[in-house]
Amino acid sequence: MDALPEALIGNILKARGLKLAAAESCTGGLIGSRITDIPGSSEYFLGSIVAYAYVVKVSLLGVSWETLNSYGAVSRETVLAMAHGARNRLNGDIAISVSGIAGPGGGMPEKPVGTTWIGLVASDGAWASEFQFTGNREENKSSSATAALQMLLDYLQGKLQT
Amino acid sequence: MDALPEALIGNILKARGLKLAAAESCTGGLIGSRITDIPGSSEYFLGSIVAYAYVVKVSLLGVSWETLNSYGAVSRETVLAMAHGARNRLNGDIAISVSGIAGPGGGMPEKPVGTTWIGLVASDGAWASEFQFTGNREENKSSSATAALQMLLDYLQGKLQT
Repeated sequence: MDALPEALIGNILKARGLKLAAAESCTGGLIGSRITDIPGSSEYFLGSIVAYAYVVKVSLLGVSWETLNSYGAVSRETVLAMAHGARNRLNGDIAISVSGIAGPGGGMPEKPVGTTWIGLVASDGAWASEFQFTGNREENKSSSATAALQMLLDYLQGKLQT
Repeated sequence: MDALPEALIGNILKARGLKLAAAESCTGGLIGSRITDIPGSSEYFLGSIVAYAYVVKVSLLGVSWETLNSYGAVSRETVLAMAHGARNRLNGDIAISVSGIAGPGGGMPEKPVGTTWIGLVASDGAWASEFQFTGNREENKSSSATAALQMLLDYLQGKLQT
């Protein structure tokens, strides 16, 4: 169990007294579920806003229609706005966010199925990374959740470029 | 796949043009993740508010501190308030909610580990049921998610008492 990123993350967040929030689209809640598989996660996990519909990204996370219309739901701009929104609405120290195209539908030439953006916002900066997964729907969801947790672990271990 | 409650639920919601919202505590996002394992779920699933911390149940779901303090987070009153909150905040037709004690900690004599309340609010009524699961943390989360999806399916099939 201790090798899971969610377990390592938990130990670090507890030790530093930091509170975590999340904003999820394509993962549908899987990130929050993974985090809460760890006993004692209520000490550092505030919650997650699963904003599957565009309108929920706007109403609950404060993403602007302009951002969604200009860059799309699966973009650097949107995942950063989602993470900012989750951090503000849940009053967290750190927020992670994910938006991607899990498939099998929804792919486009410039954004094929498996395209996923992951964002992280903390007091000292904001980061976003793009991934291209090649699995089926459930595999892409799982890969997206793992990538988000790994990005958070990298941040906590000082490995993200500032 | 078609035997999964989340697949049957999806078919019914699509056919009736109904939009679904969720409010999760102990499941941590697992209900939203199960629902979004189904391709095309974006047609009927708006999102889920994973309110793990008490303060998020209040700030994002509108559960009152009085309800939490009087009845506890794992109670009929709290899951009904959570479902009402999710239905209102996400503008859904139907909302399901879950709050329970997944364990291994958090158990009390009158509410042992595995105690779970599930709520459902729709235009024609509100329902809540108590369950007592006996598994480990991950099993209790899974059982809670399954019970919530089954309750939703029962509602959609007209099997819940009014």
